[in-house]
Amino acid sequence: MKIAIAGSGALGCGFGYHLQKSGEEVTLLDNWADHIQVVSENGLTITVNGKEDNLKMNMCKPHELNEEMDAIFVFTKSMGLKPMMESIDHIIGADTKVICLLNGLGHLKTLEHYVDKKNIIMGTTVWTAGIDAPGITHFNGQGPVELQNSDPSEKEGALVIVDMLQRSGLNGVYSDNVNYTTWRKACVNGTMNALCALLDTTIEKVFSTSTIDSMLSGIVTEFATVARLQDDIKLDVEETITYLKNLADKVGAHYPSMHQDLANNRPTEIDFLNGAVAEASKRFGVEAPYCQKVTDLIHAKEDILGIPSASNS
Amino acid sequence: MKIAIAGSGALGCGFGYHLQKSGEEVTLLDNWADHIQVVSENGLTITVNGKEDNLKMNMCKPHELNEEMDAIFVFTKSMGLKPMMESIDHIIGADTKVICLLNGLGHLKTLEHYVDKKNIIMGTTVWTAGIDAPGITHFNGQGPVELQNSDPSEKEGALVIVDMLQRSGLNGVYSDNVNYTTWRKACVNGTMNALCALLDTTIEKVFSTSTIDSMLSGIVTEFATVARLQDDIKLDVEETITYLKNLADKVGAHYPSMHQDLANNRPTEIDFLNGAVAEASKRFGVEAPYCQKVTDLIHAKEDILGIPSASNS
Repeated sequence: MKIAIAGSGALGCGFGYHLQKSGEEVTLLDNWADHIQVVSENGLTITVNGKEDNLKMNMCKPHELNEEMDAIFVFTKSMGLKPMMESIDHIIGADTKVICLLNGLGHLKTLEHYVDKKNIIMGTTVWTAGIDAPGITHFNGQGPVELQNSDPSEKEGALVIVDMLQRSGLNGVYSDNVNYTTWRKACVNGTMNALCALLDTTIEKVFSTSTIDSMLSGIVTEFATVARLQDDIKLDVEETITYLKNLADKVGAHYPSMHQDLANNRPTEIDFLNGAVAEASKRFGVEAPYCQKVTDLIHAKEDILGIPSASNS
Repeated sequence: MKIAIAGSGALGCGFGYHLQKSGEEVTLLDNWADHIQVVSENGLTITVNGKEDNLKMNMCKPHELNEEMDAIFVFTKSMGLKPMMESIDHIIGADTKVICLLNGLGHLKTLEHYVDKKNIIMGTTVWTAGIDAPGITHFNGQGPVELQNSDPSEKEGALVIVDMLQRSGLNGVYSDNVNYTTWRKACVNGTMNALCALLDTTIEKVFSTSTIDSMLSGIVTEFATVARLQDDIKLDVEETITYLKNLADKVGAHYPSMHQDLANNRPTEIDFLNGAVAEASKRFGVEAPYCQKVTDLIHAKEDILGIPSASNS
């Protein structure tokens, strides 16, 4: 299959590497010139679960690829999805599958502006990754990658991608309810991720505070309300809180991504998490004050740090 | 008049100093041994609006004073009021006036456990002060000190205290609506003070963020709702927000007290501001999620910094 990775940061490189190793024809797309140069000259250096490898890979800027793809994996930050879709419009054909594993809410709506719904495959993954330097990345975990066709009649197309991800070692699995997994993951990011960024500390510390129950239940209740109203998804508040606490026990000493964003002067994805819940709640005539407050405070932090607004990026 | 200052930090020392200079018989009470020792040995060194003075003053721990007072000014932190009242019970007689100028909400209720309502005088002040070292303080501003009797039939008693504060240069004025001033001041502290503590920055920076309007209106609306339900006080939300913005323009580069509390590992007064509004709202069957979130986050910050809970202090 001819595959493009639209947004070849750490996760994108990891996916591209595995797919090429298993025989697919992969092009990495990105806009970071240094990264492209190093990969083009020296190949991609990648450490997968502790084992380093180097692989010669095609990499260029989106406008430099001039061929319709069979499948495109989008791996941008949430706020980068729209501009990325604009820049890869010319490689999307009538049958090009577009696979979206992004964190956050509302991405299907964005994709539908650029891709026929029958070709959109939504999913989630728990692979983790990082960039150590231009051209040098690491990739950890065992997956899985859960996938589901957005158009109910297009399961077969999704199964082809699942199968390809299985063969490449990325642990693809078909899911009947990717939307639920997406909401649940958004709930994780909207609580532990947002609170660590706000309170400038680790998950462990946030979950040891005396007010953690109150902080979690306010936010989770609002996520659950909007999940039900908007997508008919049932998020059990108590069960979700228990899940969050168990997860926090495991990943304790970690600073999640939004904290890292602020620390590195990058805009956060808050508008696609708590902000999306607050916005959606207005459409349904309910309120989401906890999510609104968290969103306001994170944006205030970005402003105080002089980080340009994500909507301009 | 025989006067005790119950809690002789910076403001208490400033009041005690002015009252003794104008001829009153003042005893400073406090529990800080070093401060008592320096004042007892060297007198109080105080700089009032830039002019330094030194005055020999009586100072001891609360239990060491064994005489009923004519008037007692309480000048503790909000969470220190209850323990202070316990420790000065023996100097409160049937006619002892107790004057409370503390920031925050709910102090009248606390005082009524220890003092006959007819003797309680509530008030606010805009004098500011600081401690530079044990026995060495500064005191700034021009006042005023607004006072009002809690028992409507006791205006005469309040006027006596107002008159005394006038003569001492502390700019006492009688107010028909101290409760309104108290709520409005609580609103200032519950917004700019709390947000600066949370976002770890100055008033200027907080008020320049893109989400300031949303952050202010959520909190102020909840303060206004509880002020109306609990005390029949009308806080106009729009007018209050305009007032806050004008005030922020004037005091811009300042870090308010709660920020200083966290920076110096002391518990904040959040439970007597946003926390009091959140608690009260439950009694009236309404909700105050913005105030609840801010309170939870500030307590989480205290916990993360290892600051002991105020309720244990």
